[in-house]
Order: sequence, then structure tokens, then C-alpha cells
Amino acid sequence: MHSFPEPIEKTLKELSRLPGVGKKSAMRILYHLLKSGGSAIEDLEGALKLLRENIEKCRTCRGYKEKGSDCPICGDPKRDPGLLCVVESTQDLHLIDGTSAFNGSYFVLHGLLSPFKGIGPEALGLDEFRERLENEAVSEVIIATPYTAEGEATSSYLITITEEKGIKASRIGMGIPIGSDLSFVDPETLSRALSGRREVK
Amino acid sequence: MHSFPEPIEKTLKELSRLPGVGKKSAMRILYHLLKSGGSAIEDLEGALKLLRENIEKCRTCRGYKEKGSDCPICGDPKRDPGLLCVVESTQDLHLIDGTSAFNGSYFVLHGLLSPFKGIGPEALGLDEFRERLENEAVSEVIIATPYTAEGEATSSYLITITEEKGIKASRIGMGIPIGSDLSFVDPETLSRALSGRREVK
Repeated sequence: MHSFPEPIEKTLKELSRLPGVGKKSAMRILYHLLKSGGSAIEDLEGALKLLRENIEKCRTCRGYKEKGSDCPICGDPKRDPGLLCVVESTQDLHLIDGTSAFNGSYFVLHGLLSPFKGIGPEALGLDEFRERLENEAVSEVIIATPYTAEGEATSSYLITITEEKGIKASRIGMGIPIGSDLSFVDPETLSRALSGRREVK
Repeated sequence: MHSFPEPIEKTLKELSRLPGVGKKSAMRILYHLLKSGGSAIEDLEGALKLLRENIEKCRTCRGYKEKGSDCPICGDPKRDPGLLCVVESTQDLHLIDGTSAFNGSYFVLHGLLSPFKGIGPEALGLDEFRERLENEAVSEVIIATPYTAEGEATSSYLITITEEKGIKASRIGMGIPIGSDLSFVDPETLSRALSGRREVK
């Protein structure tokens, strides 16, 4: 088998680095691009350049926003400034915002506390989080980190900070997903769903 | 749900155009890029630019090669110039070349005859194919188009041209499932289909 010309090898390497793109998918994408011709490749390049040059983190919520523009979330006057939801990632932010069950502001950690990976409170911007609690009229912090070891550790830490400031902290509900069979839920979730049961009125 | 900043929307749109990348995967890739930071995006941009600017079709086999360099296949003196394998796509070329059951030269059609899609002999470079048969010492043309309606129609057409020049035409072995794409076949089947090719009379 002959090797590929260098520009093809390089593109395959870069494409394979993307999440969910294996060797075969990279090959499919590559041939699609080559077949579509220069303008299709240029469009993708242009979008990436725009992304690289014009997207920055909002200083308040740490979500992504366009440079020179207000953050679409923090700059939205219709949101409740008293509710602050803390999420692991911008992806989680959009998932939660897509439910329309929440209309407050956000704080994006861009990770979870992890001593093994060397991720401490500074990397998650927890000083900025503390400052927001001091400077804004936050009445409740909703912690929406996942129910994993790291998510739970991060949550404990956030609860401590929040309560130190005399603010109410709450944790996103845990239990059985809607439409799911009990048999698909692990015993730990089931046991917590039971102990966290709510009275029906 | 708030809308995304334009550079993010544009990137999502371009990523969703890639084969095998749906809305959810595009989102995953986007956040991966944003999280990896500017240099990761720049690396991908650079690879795409290199691909766009430095890859061209070889005039002989019509496969992709680096500009200013010899074609890695047509320029390889160890290959048998008497055997010419005709494939639908460069992807198929690499699949076949990866089996090491074939060590001749190639001709890439970049499509199949299709009256419905308006793809005629010119679009597939069949004049160039004819010229190769006239100018090179080809002793056998192995037709490796898929066993689909379009692949078979293309094969008939190629057989006619080949036999007109008094050259032996053979069809890749019927080890390939009918209606299937070459990329779904494992290398072993592909290699057997090659060695089990039959002459078309």
C-alpha cells in the first residue's frame, strides 16, 4: 500500500483528532472534501478562522460569545439575575437552556475538580464565581454538575462557597429519566431516587 | 433557548455538511475545538489549506497527488504497467491498493455512468481512458466498479472500449455483495475478489 501525499496525511491526522471521528470517518470526510472541491474546503476553513478569531469567553458566565458583542445570556435583561446555574461545560449550558425550565444566569466551569488530572479550583474559575456571589444579587445557586465522583466533589466545593456567602445552594434533581425503564437504571441511582422521593399532593 | 453567536452557527453549519457528522456530532466537535483553543483550530485550518492548495488530480490515473510531485502510483517503477484497474473513486483505489493483491496502475472514474444524474462518459474521463489504452502497453483492464446498476452499466461501457482496442477485460470477482459499496467489504474479501477475477468474453 502506498502512502498518501503529505497534505492528505496531515488532513487525515487532524480530522482523526476530532471527537467521534475515527480513521474510516476521517477518510470519508477527506474524500468528500476533495470531491466537493476547493470552495467547500474554503468554506470550512473560513468558518474555523471566524470561530478562532471572533469567539471568546464571556468574563461573567465564562460561556462563549462573539468578540465585541454582549454575551447573549448575561446581556439578556429578561433573565432572572437571582438564579445562578453552575455547569460543567458550555454544552451543558445549552442543554439546560434548551429546556426552558430555567431562565436565570450561568457559570461555566469548563471542567470538574480532579486531583488526578491536576484540575484545581483556579482552573475552574472559582475565584470569579466567588466574586459573582459577592457582587451580584444572587438568591440561589443551582449546581448542575453531573452525578459522578468528580461532579459530586465539585458540587460539594461549590456548596461550601455558596453557603459561606449565606446564599441558598441547590442540586439539580437526581432520579429516573422520563421514559426509562427501572431496569435500565443502576442500583445507586435507584436507591438515591428512593431516598430523594417527594410527597405527591 | 438563545441562539448561538454567528461564528459558532457558521461552524456548526459547515461541520454538519461533512458526511457522517450530524447535528449532535457537529456540536461535540465544535466544543472540542473551542476547548482545545486557537492552536487546535489553526492546525485543522492549516491542514485544510494545504489540502486545498497542494492536492491535484494526476493526469494519468486521475487519483489525487501532491502538486509538483510525481504521482505515487503512476511514478512507481515497481508496478506492472500491463495491468490497469478501473475504480469508481480514489477511496476504492486505496482500498484495493491496501490489499496488496494488485500491483498495477489505476484509472479513477470519480463517478459512475448515470443518465438520471446526467453523468456521461465525458464526466468520467473515458476519452483519457481510451488514450491510455492506445498509448500504454496495457495487457489487461480489471474493472472494479461495484455490482450495482450504475456500476454494471459503467462496466459494460468499459468492456466495450477495452475490447475495441483488442485488450483483455476482466471484472473484479463476484465476492462483493450485490448492491454494496466497496468500503463495506473487508480487505480479505476484497483481495479474494481481485485474485478471483474472471475474464469477460
